[in-house]
Amino acid sequence: MSVATVTCTAPVNIAVIKYWGKRDNDLILPINSSLSVTLHQDQVGMGSGPGSGLSAPHPMQGGCESPDCTDPHLPAAQDHHHGHRQPGLHRGPAMAEWGGGGCGAPPAAGLPAGGAAPGPKAPGQQHGGHGLAQPLLQGPHRHQEQLPHRSRFGILCCRLRLPGWVSRDTGDTASQACPHHPDPIPVPAVSTLARLYGVEGELSEVARRGSGSACRSMLGGFVQWQRGERPDGRDSIAQQVAPETHWPELRVLVLVVSGEKKQVGSTAGMQTSVDTSPLLKHRAEVVVPERLALMVQHIRERDFEGFGQLTMQDSNQFHATCLDTFPPIFYLNDISRHIIALAHRFNAHHGCTKVAYTFDAGPNAVIFLLADTVAEFVEVVRRSFPPATNGDQFVRGLPVSSASLPEELLTAVVAEPVPGAVQYILHTKPGPGPQFLDDPSQHLLGADGLPRRTA
Amino acid sequence: MSVATVTCTAPVNIAVIKYWGKRDNDLILPINSSLSVTLHQDQVGMGSGPGSGLSAPHPMQGGCESPDCTDPHLPAAQDHHHGHRQPGLHRGPAMAEWGGGGCGAPPAAGLPAGGAAPGPKAPGQQHGGHGLAQPLLQGPHRHQEQLPHRSRFGILCCRLRLPGWVSRDTGDTASQACPHHPDPIPVPAVSTLARLYGVEGELSEVARRGSGSACRSMLGGFVQWQRGERPDGRDSIAQQVAPETHWPELRVLVLVVSGEKKQVGSTAGMQTSVDTSPLLKHRAEVVVPERLALMVQHIRERDFEGFGQLTMQDSNQFHATCLDTFPPIFYLNDISRHIIALAHRFNAHHGCTKVAYTFDAGPNAVIFLLADTVAEFVEVVRRSFPPATNGDQFVRGLPVSSASLPEELLTAVVAEPVPGAVQYILHTKPGPGPQFLDDPSQHLLGADGLPRRTA
Repeated sequence: MSVATVTCTAPVNIAVIKYWGKRDNDLILPINSSLSVTLHQDQVGMGSGPGSGLSAPHPMQGGCESPDCTDPHLPAAQDHHHGHRQPGLHRGPAMAEWGGGGCGAPPAAGLPAGGAAPGPKAPGQQHGGHGLAQPLLQGPHRHQEQLPHRSRFGILCCRLRLPGWVSRDTGDTASQACPHHPDPIPVPAVSTLARLYGVEGELSEVARRGSGSACRSMLGGFVQWQRGERPDGRDSIAQQVAPETHWPELRVLVLVVSGEKKQVGSTAGMQTSVDTSPLLKHRAEVVVPERLALMVQHIRERDFEGFGQLTMQDSNQFHATCLDTFPPIFYLNDISRHIIALAHRFNAHHGCTKVAYTFDAGPNAVIFLLADTVAEFVEVVRRSFPPATNGDQFVRGLPVSSASLPEELLTAVVAEPVPGAVQYILHTKPGPGPQFLDDPSQHLLGADGLPRRTA
Repeated sequence: MSVATVTCTAPVNIAVIKYWGKRDNDLILPINSSLSVTLHQDQVGMGSGPGSGLSAPHPMQGGCESPDCTDPHLPAAQDHHHGHRQPGLHRGPAMAEWGGGGCGAPPAAGLPAGGAAPGPKAPGQQHGGHGLAQPLLQGPHRHQEQLPHRSRFGILCCRLRLPGWVSRDTGDTASQACPHHPDPIPVPAVSTLARLYGVEGELSEVARRGSGSACRSMLGGFVQWQRGERPDGRDSIAQQVAPETHWPELRVLVLVVSGEKKQVGSTAGMQTSVDTSPLLKHRAEVVVPERLALMVQHIRERDFEGFGQLTMQDSNQFHATCLDTFPPIFYLNDISRHIIALAHRFNAHHGCTKVAYTFDAGPNAVIFLLADTVAEFVEVVRRSFPPATNGDQFVRGLPVSSASLPEELLTAVVAEPVPGAVQYILHTKPGPGPQFLDDPSQHLLGADGLPRRTA
């Protein structure tokens, strides 16, 4: 047997102009353009250390193992270094369809969340060719392949069984995709397969057809996913607005909120919103086009005041359209509301926008801020949501220096602490797009094509 | 001194097409029409017995006594029969400006919530005459009067000091209105003054100018407040769609949720929404006109399925526009979300709309349902939110027969009970408009013009 192995890491992106709703479910064409920031994989991605909390080292094959599969997209990432589940980043509209095909709920057996095994073809993926990336749609996808993954936010390694080759494995396993979500193509797979096939071209369109807004993760920095106008979706692609080096002071804090099971998955949720919310229609047609242009301008000018305000407004509006959906969808909970109120009090105290929150389809908060605000705001969060048990693990990712808060800030901003409400804070920054691992020791599959166990 | 005494009771109304936002702050002209159901005063109003829980028998003069006056409209009603505070009905947009001038927070001294003492004239109320009701605007309002009240949902008794008369009281007290909310005219005052002056005509316009959506309480049953087109507001009036006898089976449950201080008062909140929410603008201009016509049709046809669905959708959309406001306004909390989810599970179990929730500017739920569903749904609420301490007082108002729930309903609908989350349920039905009390023993002021103490 001949096996080619390529391992690729894929980043998470966080939308600041949100995507919610498709105009074409087969081609995964959005009702509006969106814009996101790609997060750095050193903190959110590979899970190389105990601090990341987002790794899942056991590669996994096959489809949905979870008995209570409710979320087609985001597994609650598991921290096997610590031997306990962590809620991780809830992937929302910004990351909808990311690595789809797996199931959101963690499997009961303590394995990492569902792997992205390709199943039978989705109808939309049988449509005709699309330029250079065409082989990716009609090539390996016609065959069984294994898509083990280390983390939905992390490494993905592909071992392909090309036509005529003999499989050593029980090929049946790989074709048992989750019946709810057949056949998506995760971003790492797109990059990985592209390298295997030596394909160049517009990969984001392929990623989009597999995983919606994850197409924005095909690029680093600040990325817009253009809605496009063509019925065949060829102009619905991701474009870089600015690279990750454009705004060196920009930082990101992910406030991981104590777990609550998501009521409605993103795919089902956005479809219901499209079907029932008159406000979403207006948002997509009228509000977003104006906001997108404005957001690009704020980013180009590195105008944090404008960027932050618009980020918060757009997050709120996304959740407003969820509430206008019938039956209504709630992704924010009382803790999210506490964080929102805290951010506004913090900004009001400073008399300008120092921090900006955004929430995807879950209660976790993503906070944008500049580097010189990080220490102070982290301390404000620590005071507002005193850590319950993991005080030494409360801040993860990039280092955060300590700060002492002036009394007047404490009085004005820190009201009624809610102990334990925030599990931990992940400190990160904008980062590049998918990365290939050239070190064979980091591949998920060994030379024999079998999964390697990590320490 | 010559004193004329008229005592009048005024009902509460609950909007099913919500009012939120003024196009003219002086004249209190709304950005969209609205429609409400006037609740029966036997259960929500006079507070004649321990069951009502909404009475406040000590008449009170003067303005805002509360140091933390945040809500211009709704006092947390106090139950002096039981000697403890009750959260009562949180008045929201449906009742915005109701009896305004008082303060929302209950006074610290255990007195009933702020009385509606008229202060200096608001600019808008100095505008010219408006037909028959004109004397009400330029008559007594030029003078000091006492507006003691038994309850903001209950009896109001006016004793007027007409020009040239001598006051026995310290008139200063009456003119110390709350500085935040000068000079509104509560609905009972309009009716009461109208009778005192022998005025007939379009009273709702007067009530509107004092108290916004409370103008809908000038009529019983199903009432729409027409937005109107005229800049002077003369066509912005309340009209009865159907009397309270039109839909005899219709019932209302008020689920009083454990107290949480309202963050943003209605007046300030709706102004911020008008200023910042693009979705509210679209709602007012495009969505509400269609919905209002549809709602009138559902009511005329006594179509509960249509009425209930639209009621829930419009409540959700109102709260969506609050969330789209910047900074965002949250009136729903996690308990409200539990109630919403419960209602949808209940309806899904029955395969049709059996209950319909609506929320005003607070977490309390108002549930519309038909009489034959009351016993079962009350039991579902009791199982879902087991009473903490007041089991025997959990259901108030109209009698509710007991019901035993089938096992499959329990399994499908009652999930994860939250003990104590609902303080009590008030069972009521649509009712008439303001009522005059002809029995002098029920007047709040005695023949000497002084407040009478009630038992």
